Amino acid sequence: MPVIELADVALALERIRGVAHRTPVVTSRTLGENVFLKAECFQRTGSFKFRGAYNKLASLPAGRDVIAYSSGNHAQAVALAAGLRGIRATIVMPEDAPAAKLEATRGYGAEVVTYDRWTESREEIGARLAAERDLKLVKPYDDPLIMAGQGTVALELLAAVQELDALVVPVSGGGLIAGCATVVKAMLPGARVIGVEPAAGDDHARSRAAGDRVRVEIPRTIADGLGAPEPGELTWQVNRELVDDFVSVSDDELVEAMAFLFDRVKIVVEPSGAAGVAALLHGRVPGRRVAVVLSGGNVGAARFAELVGQAAA
Amino acid sequence: MPVIELADVALALERIRGVAHRTPVVTSRTLGENVFLKAECFQRTGSFKFRGAYNKLASLPAGRDVIAYSSGNHAQAVALAAGLRGIRATIVMPEDAPAAKLEATRGYGAEVVTYDRWTESREEIGARLAAERDLKLVKPYDDPLIMAGQGTVALELLAAVQELDALVVPVSGGGLIAGCATVVKAMLPGARVIGVEPAAGDDHARSRAAGDRVRVEIPRTIADGLGAPEPGELTWQVNRELVDDFVSVSDDELVEAMAFLFDRVKIVVEPSGAAGVAALLHGRVPGRRVAVVLSGGNVGAARFAELVGQAAA
Repeated sequence: MPVIELADVALALERIRGVAHRTPVVTSRTLGENVFLKAECFQRTGSFKFRGAYNKLASLPAGRDVIAYSSGNHAQAVALAAGLRGIRATIVMPEDAPAAKLEATRGYGAEVVTYDRWTESREEIGARLAAERDLKLVKPYDDPLIMAGQGTVALELLAAVQELDALVVPVSGGGLIAGCATVVKAMLPGARVIGVEPAAGDDHARSRAAGDRVRVEIPRTIADGLGAPEPGELTWQVNRELVDDFVSVSDDELVEAMAFLFDRVKIVVEPSGAAGVAALLHGRVPGRRVAVVLSGGNVGAARFAELVGQAAA
Repeated sequence: MPVIELADVALALERIRGVAHRTPVVTSRTLGENVFLKAECFQRTGSFKFRGAYNKLASLPAGRDVIAYSSGNHAQAVALAAGLRGIRATIVMPEDAPAAKLEATRGYGAEVVTYDRWTESREEIGARLAAERDLKLVKPYDDPLIMAGQGTVALELLAAVQELDALVVPVSGGGLIAGCATVVKAMLPGARVIGVEPAAGDDHARSRAAGDRVRVEIPRTIADGLGAPEPGELTWQVNRELVDDFVSVSDDELVEAMAFLFDRVKIVVEPSGAAGVAALLHGRVPGRRVAVVLSGGNVGAARFAELVGQAAA
């Protein structure tokens, strides 16, 4: 029995209707009329994560409070979704997460607990607090309801764009691509699904090569949204079957793609969110008619200036 | 007899239909549900200027080649419009215009002639080349067809947003606001039209105070799109009657507004294009329900990094 099916994603789309944004599909004359960018930078809380978080929280018994651990975007997503559902959220975040993400999470009304991501385990902290405070743990990706929520990105995309040779999706724990691949393989089985990882954290490519989940060092990359060191257990069950290929991009290529999207498309995309365009610009995506998920836009102006300034210098 | 009327703008909208983009009206939860941003950064060539240029060129006799002088956005607009109309364009640009704008203009197939904007007159160079080469001069703002084309911004806006207390528009030579004010005062006479100038180039505010057109020093401002030192002759005939107020913003306020739009709305706006939001954020715009024209997005990633980096330092 599959971990999730198309029907789960369709149900998720019903749950988030009128709450999440139906984000635009953007084209650019520079990339050509056959490249479609699904702009989740315009999603509420600035990334696709809101879709899965809201789908999960809307499926919980009324009044059940939640806890989550996250490098940032999942944190904001759970915090906002909890506020909208009228429940309380506790969020475990790395102490070196971007200040803007820490502030935004607190701004949505969540309680933030920080930890050192080089020495402590967020899973352990999350599990301990969940037990102590009787909170429901909302995992960032390894949950069928989270995956189904993220898959609504692809469902909206395929409603807007007919015929595709490939869909390109950034990969961290694998929740977004698991949901999207479930949709694409059910609706457009001829289209390829390509995952993009940071070169410093290519655990999916290594897992594919090894035939089983491989854990790498915690990736040191500017793509702070792509920091998971190994595929999720459930997401991998989906992705090992449905994802056609995993490719990787360097930090320099991510900055170049962010600047490209800034200059040519006039939109703000965070390093993780630019991974698909980076792969596309460097010829790592097959096919003529291609859609790319721009997964998020949570990079502050000052951080963007720093990244692009270093690249220009 | 008025310089332009609503009918001229309606006709311009017909001419640009299917050629110019109908740009989105964007809202931001931070600014609130009563603030509407007309995002001309997503217009072809990256600014509203394409509307006026195409309206003008589509009204010329077939095969008439053109010349234009411009600090950048009008140049790209005329260059692309000429290419689409199958005619040749010669563009006179300041030699210190942003490199991206010089390159983009050449990229659209135009011939670029540069000049020193501190010692030479672009009007004189333009007039001389027009005579020598038998070219039709396409002025950046002081032309009823240009003004009518720019007014389509407001016509599209009022089709999307009902009821407004005020429309806020960046002002350089006054073409955009003349077209927009013509539309607003005809369709929503109770709404105020507010022009925003850089503090270093507040020639419209001074002209209003003096009761006649006042010329200031060439403005030294980061808003390279707002460099006209005096109101246009024809635009002033419109604006002295129809614009309710002119307010000004500092360069620091422009950078702050650019960073705000980057962080909160995830869109790229050049310094000139951020003028309206800068005025709004600093309480210089009256009214509860307000629309703001984001006039353009032609600031390179490296230049943005420089401006925001200096502000952060």
